[in-house]
Order: sequence, then C-alpha cells, then structure tokens
Amino acid sequence: MSEPVSPISYRDAGVDRDAANRAKSRVLQMVRSTTTAGVVPNPGGFGGLFRVPMDLHDPLLVSSADGVGTKLKVAMMANRHHTVGHDLVNHCVNDILVEGARPLFFLDYIGMGRLEPGVVEHIVEGIVAGCKENGCALLGGETAEMPDFYDPGEYDLAGFIVGAVDADARIGADRVQEGDVLLGLAANGFHTNGYSLVRKILFDRAGLKVNDIFPGKPHTVADELLRVHRSYLHALIPLLGERQSDIHALAHITGGGILENLDRVIPQGLQAVVDTSTWAVPSEFSTIAELSGLGPNELFRTFNMGIGMIVVVAAESAQRVGASLQDAGETVYTIGKVERGEEPVRLV
Amino acid sequence: MSEPVSPISYRDAGVDRDAANRAKSRVLQMVRSTTTAGVVPNPGGFGGLFRVPMDLHDPLLVSSADGVGTKLKVAMMANRHHTVGHDLVNHCVNDILVEGARPLFFLDYIGMGRLEPGVVEHIVEGIVAGCKENGCALLGGETAEMPDFYDPGEYDLAGFIVGAVDADARIGADRVQEGDVLLGLAANGFHTNGYSLVRKILFDRAGLKVNDIFPGKPHTVADELLRVHRSYLHALIPLLGERQSDIHALAHITGGGILENLDRVIPQGLQAVVDTSTWAVPSEFSTIAELSGLGPNELFRTFNMGIGMIVVVAAESAQRVGASLQDAGETVYTIGKVERGEEPVRLV
Repeated sequence: MSEPVSPISYRDAGVDRDAANRAKSRVLQMVRSTTTAGVVPNPGGFGGLFRVPMDLHDPLLVSSADGVGTKLKVAMMANRHHTVGHDLVNHCVNDILVEGARPLFFLDYIGMGRLEPGVVEHIVEGIVAGCKENGCALLGGETAEMPDFYDPGEYDLAGFIVGAVDADARIGADRVQEGDVLLGLAANGFHTNGYSLVRKILFDRAGLKVNDIFPGKPHTVADELLRVHRSYLHALIPLLGERQSDIHALAHITGGGILENLDRVIPQGLQAVVDTSTWAVPSEFSTIAELSGLGPNELFRTFNMGIGMIVVVAAESAQRVGASLQDAGETVYTIGKVERGEEPVRLV
Repeated sequence: MSEPVSPISYRDAGVDRDAANRAKSRVLQMVRSTTTAGVVPNPGGFGGLFRVPMDLHDPLLVSSADGVGTKLKVAMMANRHHTVGHDLVNHCVNDILVEGARPLFFLDYIGMGRLEPGVVEHIVEGIVAGCKENGCALLGGETAEMPDFYDPGEYDLAGFIVGAVDADARIGADRVQEGDVLLGLAANGFHTNGYSLVRKILFDRAGLKVNDIFPGKPHTVADELLRVHRSYLHALIPLLGERQSDIHALAHITGGGILENLDRVIPQGLQAVVDTSTWAVPSEFSTIAELSGLGPNELFRTFNMGIGMIVVVAAESAQRVGASLQDAGETVYTIGKVERGEEPVRLV
C-alpha cells in the first residue's frame, strides 16, 4: 500500500449524492401522479413497465426522441424552468400523433452540471403537466449530475415517447390524394423552433432583455418566448383511429417550417399548394421578420409562421373535420390543397 | 415595414442546416443496418414504428433512459468518440435485462454546440455497434445543434430503450428467497460509473494524461477508461424467459455500486451477504483506492469493484446456472447468499 493520502470523496468530486437522493424522492411523488392504467408498478426497479394495450387489433409502437433546443436558454435567462418540460412532452406527442398514435408513456433525460434540486423539480413539474395533459405516464428518466460539463445554471433536456396505433389506422403519405384539402391549425407562438435565430435577433441585435416588453405585445419577451408548445392531441384523436379516417395525413410544423415538414407527407407526383394569404401571420413573426430583414422563403423554412399542424383531409370531409376541430377549440384555416405537380410544397 | 437591415440567416446564428442534412443522410445509412424483424419501415416519418412481438402471452414493455455520464469527458480528452454510444446501449440493455426483458428498440439524443459531422458519425457508430451486439433496432433519435450551449468539442448523449418481457416471466425481489445463492459476473473495468471521481484522481491528483500508461497496466489511461461497458444479454437471456426461471433476480451494478444496487432486489426481512474475498478486485480499482485513500465502504458505493452483474439464483440451480454462464463466456464468482436479516446488503 502507498502512504496514506487525504481521501477524496465523491462529494469533493462534485457529486452530492444525498442532495440527489432527496430531490429524487420529491420528484418520484410527482411522477406517480401521472400513473395511467397501463403502468405496471415496479418500485425500485431498473426499468419502467407498461402493459401493451389490448384494444388494438395489430398494435404498432410509435416512438420519438426530442429535445427543447435553445428555448432552454430563454428559460435559464428568465430563471423560469417549469414550462420547458411541458414543451418537450407536447412536441413529442404531436410527432407521434402524425403517425396516428396516441401516447402511452414518456421518459426524460436531464443533464446538469451540479444538481440543483429546485430547478430539477421545476423541470419535472413541466414534464408532469405535459404528461397529464396528454394522458401519458411518466415511466422513467435519468437525471445526470455532470460536474465540469455544464456551466453553472445550465442543463440540457431530452424526452422520449412511446405511443401506439393500430396498423390499419395508420395515416401518412400513401393515403394522400389529388384534391385533398389542407387545414392549418393555429400555433400559439414559436413553439420550440427557431430559437437560436430569435435569440440572436432579439437579444444580440435588438438589445432586448427577457423581462422587457415584447415589441407590439402586452407581455414580456420571456412570456412570448416561453409560451408552451401547443399539443393537438385532444382535437385530433377523436378524428383518427378509424380504419379509413377522412384525415389522410398530418404534418407537425417544427424545425424546417411548412416547407420542410409538409413535404414529408406529400407523395411523388403530387404537390401541396399553400396560399399564405389565407391566414394572418401572427405579429411575433412579423417582428422577427422586420428586425432580421429575412425574406419569406427563409422565414417559412425556419418558423411555423402561425401554423403548428397541417391536416391533409379528403375534400368532401374538409368542412366536417374543420368544424369538429373548431369545436375542440382549434383555430382552423383552409390553407390550400393537393394538386398534381413535381415540387412537393409550393407557397403562393 | 422598417428600413432594410442586413439579413441574419440561420447559418449566421450558428446552425448550418446543410451540413446537418449531409451528416444525417450518412447516419441514416448506418441506422438502417440495425433493422430487425419488428421494424415497420417509415421513411421520412415523424416517429419510428415497431410491431409488438406476438410470441409473448402477456407482453409488458420495459423501458429505461440513461446517459454515459462523465465518461464522455474522457472520450473528448482522447478524441475517441466511437465507443461511448456502445457503452450507452449496453448499459440500457443491462438495465432492462434485470426485469427479464430482451431489447426491442433504442433511440438516442445527442446535444452538441456546433454539429461536427465526423464526431456525430463516430458516436452513432458506437450506438449502432451496441444495437447490433444486442439485436436491437436503432429506431430513431435526435441530434440537436445548440449554439452557445455546449463548449466547442463537447456534447451530451442520452439513450432510451424499450424491451419486452412476458408478464409470467418477470423476475425480481418478490421471487428472492432465503438460501438463494449470489453469483457475481465479472465487469471489464469501470463500465460507466464513478468517472467524476476517477478523472479527479487520475488527472487532477496524479497528473496523468489520457495517453499515459495506466499504472500497472499494459495500456493507456484512455484504453482503460474507455473500455466498453459489458452487456450480459447473451449469457443471461437463454436462462430467463421461462415461467419459473431458476434465476430469481438480477442486479446491474451501476452508480451506487453493489451496496445500492443489490439492495433493490432484496425483499424486506432478507439480506444479501456478500463475501468480498471471493473475487480478486481488479487492479484498476486498487489503483484508484491507493491514489484516493478511500475506504472500502465508499469504494463499494461508487464503483462496481469488478462485479458488473449479480445473479440471485435458487441454491439447487446455482451450479447449473453458473456453468451455463461460464460456457457463455462469463467469469463467474459465487460471492454470497441470501439470509434472514434486516440490513439489505452486508459486505463481509
């Protein structure tokens, strides 16, 4: 043995396991409040357990992983951490909804320099709110304390969702036909996309602070930028799930905007023609347009421009589907239709 | 409209979407090589699709989220990025194996300051190697470019796994009985735990560099610290899956060591007595012990100390199970047994 040296404990190395365990126990309580019928209790287990739904004839699992992107940075600037988890869940829910799936369960990953129990709890609070809104169990997660890795006060957040759809009830590009109508569902802000650019324009170029008033709005920059990404689950799910739904496809308008997301559900030989005059682009996007000097093409490739989800629906059902979505609380615009053509998405 | 200003494009804001798209396409090719029978093709889809296995009577999905912790920092110091993804998959596989589950699919999340296509490809290369080793499809993932968020050359990596087990074939604490034997399966190094402490001791205190020789070993510090976390799937899965497996429980020895992981499968009123003289603690752990001056209690709470998985098995089957594990290539130690007692885990 070498001569005695002063011991380095794990606490000195930047990992305080007691604080971690206390936060963990409070978080577990919140997590339990999201329990749904499918959850199989597994206290102390190494994995979360969920019973495959038996009401589906040929169940397909639909899964997606996502982050919140640099919207997180705004949360940190505003020291407001209880909404980004909700963004994350709603984003993931919308992504699998596009495959016709309803969510079953969610898992999160939080990476942080030094575990700040208050911040972790606020983050989980948002995740729990999102899970409850969407009837989805928070089945597990990992909170990693990574000293010397994240700057103090910074963290990253990733989420992972699993849902299910009956194979017969799948929707998507192969159902889309000439003459289909495009319904646009209003977004409620930037959702979770374009934040690197928004931050650069508002904070670096315009010199705004998070607690300043957002130009032309009755609330602050933080309020505008941290509004929770809308979930379209409850409006759309009653219209899906039938073997031959009138809804042929959905496009969740995220990074890449209408141009790069709608084209994912337009089959070869057809083109979606979107008339951008059919809805008023919300003023938060016009503000960014003015401050940045960007043209429509770049704007429509970066931001949702006020449309968070596009519903591709059989022409004869457009009226009925639109009315049902409106009854469910959505703002619905008829924004275009599917024609023959080579360019998958054309803005007019 | 305001007067014209010089446009800020998304590229100026630190997000180069073209480079991102090129890397994405090369990565997709690797991902496709992990396709298994359950994968339902969904090109361009918003979510990954997987058919629920039909050979299970009452299938439970088992899910887990994990990171690689600060082992990542060693990968960055050594500029060697093709193994950490493999660590991540194997860690997740072991976690759900403990519930008796075999893996179905995996999703990853990579957060990075500026997307470095070469680094991303190496990371995915490791994930793909892990998925192939464990017969698990890489069903999706997210690579987030977060400017001003991660330091240049740094990234975080999280993984999510979904597996399945027949409800009848579950193992765990409720099957563990007095007299059960504990078999320890050898680890092949630090796996993915204790790296904050290891780094502090080797790099800060001992002043070693990643390319120096690891004390007492024939290879470098990087070689020692980046060895891939062992997967115990192929050795154990043939012994599980029966309605009344002789294996009553498994404990994956990760953060918290034997003390805090074995106790998760020991029911109230019983205690696992582990005789630490039954295996030779590998020299990498003795080196850390000597350099740090830490005592056995702290060491056994932080490191696996040479045991990566503990198998709790019916006494009458211990011989047969041990032989089968050895035939499958594992190094197996009989490290203790389950007795009546109040302290869940006792080291003697």
